[in-house]
Amino acid sequence: MREIKIGMLGFGTVGTGVVRVLRENEQEIMAKTGAKLCLKTVLVRDAKKKRPYMEGLHLTEDIEEILSDEEIDIVIELLGGIHPAREYMLRAMGKGKNVVTANKDVVAQFGKDMFETMEKHGVDFHFEASVGGGIPIVMPLKQCLTANRVTEIMGIINGTTNYMLTQMTENGSDYDSVLKEAQEKGYAEANPAADVEGLDAARKIAILASIAFNTRIRFEDVSVEGITHITPPDIDYAKTLGYVVKLLAIGRDLGERGVDVRVHPVFLPKGHPLASVNDVYNAIFVRGNAIGEAMFYGRGAGSLPTASAVVADVIDIARDMQMDTFGRVHCTCYANKSLCPIEETEASYYVRLLVDDKPGVLAAIATAFGNHKVSMKSVIQTRRCQDKAEIVAITHRVKHRALEEAAVDLRSLAVVSEVRSIIRVENMQEENGSC
Amino acid sequence: MREIKIGMLGFGTVGTGVVRVLRENEQEIMAKTGAKLCLKTVLVRDAKKKRPYMEGLHLTEDIEEILSDEEIDIVIELLGGIHPAREYMLRAMGKGKNVVTANKDVVAQFGKDMFETMEKHGVDFHFEASVGGGIPIVMPLKQCLTANRVTEIMGIINGTTNYMLTQMTENGSDYDSVLKEAQEKGYAEANPAADVEGLDAARKIAILASIAFNTRIRFEDVSVEGITHITPPDIDYAKTLGYVVKLLAIGRDLGERGVDVRVHPVFLPKGHPLASVNDVYNAIFVRGNAIGEAMFYGRGAGSLPTASAVVADVIDIARDMQMDTFGRVHCTCYANKSLCPIEETEASYYVRLLVDDKPGVLAAIATAFGNHKVSMKSVIQTRRCQDKAEIVAITHRVKHRALEEAAVDLRSLAVVSEVRSIIRVENMQEENGSC
Repeated sequence: MREIKIGMLGFGTVGTGVVRVLRENEQEIMAKTGAKLCLKTVLVRDAKKKRPYMEGLHLTEDIEEILSDEEIDIVIELLGGIHPAREYMLRAMGKGKNVVTANKDVVAQFGKDMFETMEKHGVDFHFEASVGGGIPIVMPLKQCLTANRVTEIMGIINGTTNYMLTQMTENGSDYDSVLKEAQEKGYAEANPAADVEGLDAARKIAILASIAFNTRIRFEDVSVEGITHITPPDIDYAKTLGYVVKLLAIGRDLGERGVDVRVHPVFLPKGHPLASVNDVYNAIFVRGNAIGEAMFYGRGAGSLPTASAVVADVIDIARDMQMDTFGRVHCTCYANKSLCPIEETEASYYVRLLVDDKPGVLAAIATAFGNHKVSMKSVIQTRRCQDKAEIVAITHRVKHRALEEAAVDLRSLAVVSEVRSIIRVENMQEENGSC
Repeated sequence: MREIKIGMLGFGTVGTGVVRVLRENEQEIMAKTGAKLCLKTVLVRDAKKKRPYMEGLHLTEDIEEILSDEEIDIVIELLGGIHPAREYMLRAMGKGKNVVTANKDVVAQFGKDMFETMEKHGVDFHFEASVGGGIPIVMPLKQCLTANRVTEIMGIINGTTNYMLTQMTENGSDYDSVLKEAQEKGYAEANPAADVEGLDAARKIAILASIAFNTRIRFEDVSVEGITHITPPDIDYAKTLGYVVKLLAIGRDLGERGVDVRVHPVFLPKGHPLASVNDVYNAIFVRGNAIGEAMFYGRGAGSLPTASAVVADVIDIARDMQMDTFGRVHCTCYANKSLCPIEETEASYYVRLLVDDKPGVLAAIATAFGNHKVSMKSVIQTRRCQDKAEIVAITHRVKHRALEEAAVDLRSLAVVSEVRSIIRVENMQEENGSC
């Protein structure tokens, strides 16, 4: 039986998972692949450090030991971050090695380079694990849904923030205490910015939208807003109104109006398939003109789930090697679509204001909205305290620019003490199978 | 650009969808495939009949026009049923043509023949649309989850019964009236047996379990029980106890105890990811030793969703043809696992009895259960009418044989007028990522 030799860069959480999966499912993988996958060399920072599952593995601190090893046909990159991961992957492909990566940063920012290098050197470049952990989504989009014109892709693709929002919803906790709890459980980093500010989700939706809409979307193209301003009253109002608060990554192909890609919290109707995706689970919802709605659900992170995706990519390459073929599925960004500026995007909005509790206030607010053609679907006035009241308005669908301008006017009104929150409301579209 | 010519057998609901998808997404498909897919000839029973979307298509009543046409490289089979679909597919492969089918009957009963013929003649045989309509599940199992040892696959894979049970749950309707309604809406056939008796789901789980567990499971190997005996009181008790009633298709690899594959109604905990899959939607839940839990959700039937899967298979073959390769992913039934007899399977059970309303009855029932080592987790006694009462017991996990034997004893007790229902209770297992 043919032996396919693998080099791995990095031996952290995911790397350990890869070693376990290759070892513990060895028999099954051989039977399915018709080849023996051998992890020959692993790049680490400190080759002397003891680690779990290291028995029998050759560790090195020298990248050349992998890049110059002609026996190694597949390189798994698990270093994360841009440098030196990107350079190592480019060099590996330059030497005719196939590359599998879980690196969302490189794919979201330098995807184009990677694919061009892949095609130039006649190798495979796979990155299923870069989005949604173990959830199969890259191959399903590139292959299973390829007969569709995808018009929408929407996901809960950051486990940390989903865990935090779930806790806030279920236990009424506030932001700071759930962040602390998430950090204690290891779900959030000491510096949680990448997660709570939506940057991690933005990188992932850039990758997904590029595949779904067949046009290159980079990280910089994504409008991003995190969850740091979400408060218990917002969570409560959402519940009262029949919604849950989720951090959604959204991509929409609006045709002539361009491609709209963004990350922000939303009020999601309780009946939406994504609304019941809780805790650290991820899910990606896709709307295509043939399939209608589809959803992919699972663990978006973790050692073994992510390794599941990494090893599947390795097996895919091994199958290609057995058939002596490569690059069966090309880079699918054949189109060059424009971006829809965030100001031109449309949504309903939830707007919460602290106002003077006196006659005429509602009229003043309605006028401020009306001056920018923002009409209100519903208004709740509650939570009086002393001489102040809270007003919560849900608007009809309006352009983001109009809402922003109305907000400026609201802030300038003497009767408005504070614009406490503005959150988009995602309404369910019913447009299945509209080929 | 290369033209790939296709013959299609059948021009019903799904065939119409295929024509629409190929036509309306033509540009995208060409860009992704690098080839032009041309539907050359369509086999119909009556070539003179007017049909939507037939303009520009060559219809024939003669199968030889397709099978003997050397230009045709791909045959899409949408006739359904065993005869003559199976013979036509075998003959097409015999002539070196690749085959795509949505035919669950043939794959579930004669999968082995089909794969052997495929390998013998060096062609591709794809069947994504045979299970779960448009939902990608065959490729995800064969490729994306291939690094896993799959231990469980569980699905709501019959839209008709899921629609009926959803209506019974939401509106309190009884079985006969929801069946009538489903028939009026076109969700159920005039003869609904294949759906309501679980046979359709059994064919699909035979296919899924074969792929998931890498061993041939045929339709005849699946234990089947339908939903015809589900009554409004069962639905009500389920709600009270925190469950919903679903028709589940379940496959489990129990290791040395064999493979357990069955279709039957269950009480499913409301928090289970499958519990909120309603109406005609389908979903398939998979547990693997690396990925933990994953779920695939979407429309399990319908013209365009099913066509989405059929055309994806066609594109997959077109990509193989472009690379001059085939059979990249072999038949994955390399193992030969034994079946676990239904009597040896284990579950909790919900048992509803009509009994005399007098002292000592509960003791008699508990004794009948206890004699077969069936212990009760909870008991509710309600709905007294005249001198009768209803007792609802939820048992601990027991072997099916023990429960059946206890039921025989219960029926023979003088104080038990009727064993009204016995339904399995599916409890959530928490064994994620246990590689």
